[in-house]
Amino acid sequence: MADSMVFTLAELAAKLDARVQGDGDTLIRGLAALDSATASDLSFLANRQYRKLLASTRAGAVLLTEDDAADFTGNALIVADPYLAYARISHQFDPRPRSRAGVHPTAVIAESASVDPSASIGPGVVIEADAVVGAKVTIGAHCFIGERCRIGADSWLAPRVTLYHDVRMGERAVIQSGAVIGGEGFGFANQGGRWNKIAQIGGVLIGDDVEIGANTTVDRGALSDTVIGNGVKLDNQIQIAHNVQIGDHTAMAACVGISGSTRIGRHCMIAGGVGMVGHIEICDNVFVSGMTMVTRSITEPGAYSSGTAMQTAAEWKKSAARIRQLDTLAKRVQQLEKQLAGVTQPSQDSSES
Amino acid sequence: MADSMVFTLAELAAKLDARVQGDGDTLIRGLAALDSATASDLSFLANRQYRKLLASTRAGAVLLTEDDAADFTGNALIVADPYLAYARISHQFDPRPRSRAGVHPTAVIAESASVDPSASIGPGVVIEADAVVGAKVTIGAHCFIGERCRIGADSWLAPRVTLYHDVRMGERAVIQSGAVIGGEGFGFANQGGRWNKIAQIGGVLIGDDVEIGANTTVDRGALSDTVIGNGVKLDNQIQIAHNVQIGDHTAMAACVGISGSTRIGRHCMIAGGVGMVGHIEICDNVFVSGMTMVTRSITEPGAYSSGTAMQTAAEWKKSAARIRQLDTLAKRVQQLEKQLAGVTQPSQDSSES
Amino acid sequence: MADSMVFTLAELAAKLDARVQGDGDTLIRGLAALDSATASDLSFLANRQYRKLLASTRAGAVLLTEDDAADFTGNALIVADPYLAYARISHQFDPRPRSRAGVHPTAVIAESASVDPSASIGPGVVIEADAVVGAKVTIGAHCFIGERCRIGADSWLAPRVTLYHDVRMGERAVIQSGAVIGGEGFGFANQGGRWNKIAQIGGVLIGDDVEIGANTTVDRGALSDTVIGNGVKLDNQIQIAHNVQIGDHTAMAACVGISGSTRIGRHCMIAGGVGMVGHIEICDNVFVSGMTMVTRSITEPGAYSSGTAMQTAAEWKKSAARIRQLDTLAKRVQQLEKQLAGVTQPSQDSSES
Repeated sequence: MADSMVFTLAELAAKLDARVQGDGDTLIRGLAALDSATASDLSFLANRQYRKLLASTRAGAVLLTEDDAADFTGNALIVADPYLAYARISHQFDPRPRSRAGVHPTAVIAESASVDPSASIGPGVVIEADAVVGAKVTIGAHCFIGERCRIGADSWLAPRVTLYHDVRMGERAVIQSGAVIGGEGFGFANQGGRWNKIAQIGGVLIGDDVEIGANTTVDRGALSDTVIGNGVKLDNQIQIAHNVQIGDHTAMAACVGISGSTRIGRHCMIAGGVGMVGHIEICDNVFVSGMTMVTRSITEPGAYSSGTAMQTAAEWKKSAARIRQLDTLAKRVQQLEKQLAGVTQPSQDSSES
Repeated sequence: MADSMVFTLAELAAKLDARVQGDGDTLIRGLAALDSATASDLSFLANRQYRKLLASTRAGAVLLTEDDAADFTGNALIVADPYLAYARISHQFDPRPRSRAGVHPTAVIAESASVDPSASIGPGVVIEADAVVGAKVTIGAHCFIGERCRIGADSWLAPRVTLYHDVRMGERAVIQSGAVIGGEGFGFANQGGRWNKIAQIGGVLIGDDVEIGANTTVDRGALSDTVIGNGVKLDNQIQIAHNVQIGDHTAMAACVGISGSTRIGRHCMIAGGVGMVGHIEICDNVFVSGMTMVTRSITEPGAYSSGTAMQTAAEWKKSAARIRQLDTLAKRVQQLEKQLAGVTQPSQDSSES
Repeated sequence: MADSMVFTLAELAAKLDARVQGDGDTLIRGLAALDSATASDLSFLANRQYRKLLASTRAGAVLLTEDDAADFTGNALIVADPYLAYARISHQFDPRPRSRAGVHPTAVIAESASVDPSASIGPGVVIEADAVVGAKVTIGAHCFIGERCRIGADSWLAPRVTLYHDVRMGERAVIQSGAVIGGEGFGFANQGGRWNKIAQIGGVLIGDDVEIGANTTVDRGALSDTVIGNGVKLDNQIQIAHNVQIGDHTAMAACVGISGSTRIGRHCMIAGGVGMVGHIEICDNVFVSGMTMVTRSITEPGAYSSGTAMQTAAEWKKSAARIRQLDTLAKRVQQLEKQLAGVTQPSQDSSES
C-alpha cells in the first residue's frame, strides 16, 4: 500500500460534511470492516444486522447514523447514509497509482490525433488517426485507440483496453483491462449453408459516467450505433452485441450476455450470468435474477427469474427425469380428475384441462 | 466516418449484378435501415413483415426482390436475395481503416520468421521464431504470434490477439481483439488431492474463412490438435477446450463453452450461452437454443433445448419449490392412480409407474 | 514442433522411476493416444475401458500398470499410476519455447522495481514502481505488472497478462494470456437511482502453484484482499469477484462466475459454467456439476446440481409450459387426494399438503 494516506478524523468529517463524535484529532490511515479494523482505520455500519459488532470493534472511528451513534462510545462520524459516506471517502484511501500528464516516449500517436496536454498516455499506447483524447484523460499501457474515437474528459482506461474505430465516449468513463469496445458484431448472411460476413459499419456511443469491466466486450453497430446510456455500470466479462441499447443508470453484474438489437430500459439491475435473446425490449426498473434466460420482452417493472434451485446431485437426477415426464404427468392428473369426477359426481361434466 | 465512400446506384448495381429500377445516377454514401435511411442511403427489405415501411422510407434506393419492387415507386436495385446483397455490398461502406503493407518500426520480429512483403504488421507486434505470415495479411497492434505459427493469406488479426506457438490457420481468417488461440488447456492429474499439470503438446489447426470473436479462447490440444473447420464462425467470449473439433460452417453465438474432446458436426448452429460437457459428439445440422446444457451426444439433426422459462420472481419461487418436490408429486399421482383403480375397477391390476 | 526432443525408453524410465519391459534403447520422440501413436511415440493406458486398444496400438512404448503389462507384448514402462506418469513425463515433450534470462530492450521497467537477474522479461513488458519479480520468473510480451506487485520464483506469465497494483503471488504460478488480476470489483452505492463508485482498496493474494486460465478475471478486494489458495487451478474465462476466498487445491473449469465475498473450501471441483451468488460459504470437498446456479451455502461435502436435462425443442416447449403450471398442478393433486380420501375413507382427515 502507498503510505501517504493519513487524515485526522476532523479532516475526513470536513470532506463528508459529517459531524465528529469523539476525538477529531484521531489519525486515520485506512478503511476496514468493523470486525477487522484497527485503531488507525475508519469503519462503517451499513447494515443494522451487524450492529452488535459496534461493541467489539477496534476501529479508530466508525461512520454511523445519528441513531446508531447514540450509544456508541468510540469515535464516530455522524452522517445520513454511512454506506454512501464510505463510498465517497473510499477514494481518499485508494492505492491506485495516480497518473502524470504527458505522453510516454514509447506511445505511437498519429499526427492527426488530438491529445489534450493534460492527458496521460502510457507506454506502448497506440492512438490512430483523427482520434480525440480529452482533458485529464488517463490511457494505460498498451491501450489501442482506433481512428476517429473520442474519449471525454477525466476518463480512465486501464492498461490494455481496445477501442476499435468510431467509439465515442463521454466524460468520466472508466474502462478496465482487457475490455474490447467496437469489435465487429456477429453478422452473417447464410447462403447455401455458408456464412457471408456483413460489414459492421456502425460505431459505439457511450454516455457520461459509464464503467465497463475487465474483459467485457461491446460490439459496434451493424448499421447505426450500439448505445450505452449515462451512468451505466457493466461488470466483468459481459457481452453486449451489436445495436443493443442500454438505458441510463442500468447496472449489470458479471458474465451477462445481451444479444443483438435488444433494448434495455433505465435503472434496471441485471444479475450475473443472465442471458437475453435479441430484438426484445426490457422496460425501466426491471430486476433480473442471476442466470435467468430472458426470451421475451418485459413490459412491467419488477423482478424476474428462471432456472431451477440447486439440489444434491442424487435428488437432482430424480427431478430432472421427472421434468422430462412432466407433460405426461399433467395429462395423468387431468385423467384422474375426470375419473374421480365420474366416481363422485357421475352426472357432472369435467372440463378443466 | 470516412467520407470517400460514394457510388452511383448504377455502380453498385454492377458490383451486385443487380438491375436498376429508377435513377441509376443517384449518389449513395451509406447503408441504413428502411426507417432511418436518408436520401443518400441504400436500404434493403430482408423480411417481408417490414414491407409496409417501403411506403414511407426516405432511402435513396432499396435492395428488393422483383416481386417487392413491382409496386415500389422509389429507386431500387433488383436482386434475388436482398439480405445477401446487403451483406455483399456492406463491405463497400465499411469504415474500418485499410492497412498498408509494411512492418511498423516498433514491431519485434524474429530473424527466422517469414513475413510476406505484402503483409501489414502493426505497432508493437511480436512475431516469434519460425512463424510464417502470408500475403496481404494484416496483424494489428500488440498482437503476439508464437513460434512456428502460420497465418494464411488475406487474414486479418485485430489489435491485441495472442497466438501461442504452433497455431496454424488458413486463408481469410478474421480474429477479433483479445482472442487467445493456443492457450494451455485445463489438464491436470490428481494425486492425493493435488493437481499435477499435464503439458499441452498439441497445437491448433484452423481452416479457411474462419472468424473468431473478441476475447474468445481456443485451447491447444493435449496431444493432437484442437481443430476448427473451414467457414466456422465463433462469436465473442466463447471457450473452446483442448481437442475439441468443430465441423465446417458451424456457427456459435457468444458465451458458449465447449468442454474438452467434444466433436461438433458441420452446419450446426449453437446459440448464446450454451454449455457442452466433454467427450460427446454432436452430429451435423443440429441447432441448440440459448443457454442449453448439453450433457449427452446428439445423433439426430434437429433443435434441442433445456432450461426453464422466465417468470416473475414470485411465481418462479413457487415453481422452483415445486420442482424440488416433483419426484414426490409424481409418486403421489401414481398412488392416486392405484387408489382410484381400486375404487373404479377393483378387480384390475394397476401397473403403470 | 521443436525437434530436439528425443529420449531412449531407458532414459524416460529413469525420469519416472519406472521399470522397462522390452527394449530400453527404443527412441521416443513424442506422446500420443493409443489409437494414434506411431513407433516413436510413448502412449499410456489410463482407463481400463480402452484396454482392448493395447492389442492394436503401434506405440513405441506404453505406460502401464504391472497388471495391464502382464500380457502386453510391446515395449512398456511399468508404473503405479500411468496417468500420473504421463502427466509428469509430458513436460519432457512440451514444445513451449523456453525463455532466456534477461530483459528485452523494449521493456519499460520502473527504477524502483526489482527484477531478479535470472528472470526473463519479454518485449513491451511494463513493470511499475516497487514491483518485485523473483528468480527464474518468465514474463511474456506485453504483460503489465502494476505497482508493488510481487511475483514468486519460477512463475510464468504468458504474453499479455495484466496485474493491477498490489497483486502478490507465490511461487510456480502460471497465468495464461489475457488474464486480468486485480481489476476493480463491481462496487457501487446507490443514491437516488445513480451509482456512486466505491474505491477498491484491497489487493489480491495468490498462493503457490496456482494456475489461472486465459481471459480469466480476478478482482481486487474492496477492503481486504481477494485470496486464491495454494494449488488452486482456474480454467479460462472465469470471473472471481472482490473478496472471494478460494481454498487450497480447489479446481474450477471454464466460464465459472463467483460473486463477491463468497468463500469456497479446499479440494472442491466446480464444473464449467457454474454461477455462485455472493456472501455464501461452500465447505471442503464439494463437487458442483456444470451450469449449476448456487444460491445458498453448502455445508455438507458431496455433489450438487441444478438445471433441466436437454430435450428436443418440441418436447422442451411442453416441459417449460408445464413447469410454469407446476404450482397449480401440485394443488390439483392435493385436491384429488382430498377428494379420493372422501370417496375411500370418508371418516378420515386428509391433512397432507
